Amino acid sequence: MSSYAEQSAATGTPAVTLIGLGPMGRALAAAFLAAGVRTTVWNRTPGRDTELVERGAISARTAEEAVAASPLTVVCVVNYDASDAVLRRDDVTAALKGRTLVNLSADTPERARDTGRWAAEHGIAYLDGAIMTPVLSIGTPEAVFLLSGPADLYERHRPVLDALGGTRTHLGEDIGRAAAYDIALLDIFWTAATGYMHALALAKAEGITARELAPFAQGIGAILPSIFEETAADVDDGTFSGADNPITSAASTMAHVIHASEAHGIEAGVMRAAEGLARRVIGEGHGADGMTRMVELLGRR
Amino acid sequence: MSSYAEQSAATGTPAVTLIGLGPMGRALAAAFLAAGVRTTVWNRTPGRDTELVERGAISARTAEEAVAASPLTVVCVVNYDASDAVLRRDDVTAALKGRTLVNLSADTPERARDTGRWAAEHGIAYLDGAIMTPVLSIGTPEAVFLLSGPADLYERHRPVLDALGGTRTHLGEDIGRAAAYDIALLDIFWTAATGYMHALALAKAEGITARELAPFAQGIGAILPSIFEETAADVDDGTFSGADNPITSAASTMAHVIHASEAHGIEAGVMRAAEGLARRVIGEGHGADGMTRMVELLGRR
Repeated sequence: MSSYAEQSAATGTPAVTLIGLGPMGRALAAAFLAAGVRTTVWNRTPGRDTELVERGAISARTAEEAVAASPLTVVCVVNYDASDAVLRRDDVTAALKGRTLVNLSADTPERARDTGRWAAEHGIAYLDGAIMTPVLSIGTPEAVFLLSGPADLYERHRPVLDALGGTRTHLGEDIGRAAAYDIALLDIFWTAATGYMHALALAKAEGITARELAPFAQGIGAILPSIFEETAADVDDGTFSGADNPITSAASTMAHVIHASEAHGIEAGVMRAAEGLARRVIGEGHGADGMTRMVELLGRR
Repeated sequence: MSSYAEQSAATGTPAVTLIGLGPMGRALAAAFLAAGVRTTVWNRTPGRDTELVERGAISARTAEEAVAASPLTVVCVVNYDASDAVLRRDDVTAALKGRTLVNLSADTPERARDTGRWAAEHGIAYLDGAIMTPVLSIGTPEAVFLLSGPADLYERHRPVLDALGGTRTHLGEDIGRAAAYDIALLDIFWTAATGYMHALALAKAEGITARELAPFAQGIGAILPSIFEETAADVDDGTFSGADNPITSAASTMAHVIHASEAHGIEAGVMRAAEGLARRVIGEGHGADGMTRMVELLGRR
């Protein structure tokens, strides 16, 4: 097996294998192809590569054939159960030996670290990664990728990964770090998105359409980034400041939301759980603190 | 009692009474004073008006004296239990007769409508309102106010309310409408904020500081407004599209967040409630739909 540089030199073009052809995997493959990268594709369920092959992708018959075709394999499947089912078969593992694997599937830091151990045992160079932006962002300046693992490995493959567009951040050598960032950011995203769904149901019960609420909801969304930034210092420094917004006032508002929802027969389990955290903080005597005190409560061991 | 226009003409300046001198009430009073509005102030607990009086505010000895001093009274207290405790005393109610009351305290639409009925019974012109931005925004272009109630009343008092800065939106004649928007928007805000607190706790357990996560959290915040807009059409039209992001994939991610949290001993009640909604949608056979299907599930009667 030749090195990535040798193989690129031999074929005249950089080469990558893409495993997993769901909407995100297809977008990744399309971005590689658009950047002139020789791209070999494979998907467990056949028939997903027709359009990619029309654009120049090489369709591998098996996962081991796919992996053997390139110095770098990028995997993007639903989770690590799915990637393990493909990669941890003896013939595929053997084909990966001496090559580089980048797993962009989403899962927990624990699974990323486990995959890191498996890769090391089998002589596979491994980077773990996470895609933070939607399918349509891939190949555009909006795409955001997080990666962790050996810095020299990241630098070596950066030129071909740049074909995916947007920005890549290498978060450090701890292989679980990209997944840790990913999971924390997804925590924010899916909690906020669920809050919006609930708000739309509540608005509807009050005769307000989603289109009517949306411009004001966008206003709320627009103030979040600066609040996120201000809050961070407060948490790191352990000040938990509630000067203008004590958690007692947050809890009072949360209770209004719950009351207004349940008066319409709309369950409010998410907000009930949130209010529960606020009430515990208050019950412990920290009612004058900001809601940042929740971070300390949640993280207490 | 003279009309607002008559009284303004008599005194040479517009006049307003501000009841409730917490941080937000003080900011409102300061904005009125800065705009040259004659401002009378009162707070249940004395001693909160020192700085305002230095800036020219008139300190009333009683709530009824405060209300009698201006054609327009603005109330900003913690909730409607607190505003009722001030306004629904016979002498204060009598002093309000023929004058205008704007209640900017936060509570449920039900409480706003109840206050509307009480005001009508006592000959008090009434607008209900909500303040959507933080204390520091008051008097600046960033301030956002929502108001509902009679349109002519809103138009009449608009010149003096303009002293508060930013934008005011009159949402219609239904007196509960401002509170309904408010409560739906607070639902989004406090759910998202709680999600961020949880994410910070999870990040910390993974060795990531709040300051390290914040720039990426801001990136998540920045994509929410456009997602809020796209989602609205999908919900109003009942399409519940999940083309690129089926709720099965959301549920899978939510499960990762829960698993990663609980592996660190961090409770995940908010996300467990969110995942429960997603699993119910999937259990009903709508797994290929987007998470917007949650709105239909929550709103079903």
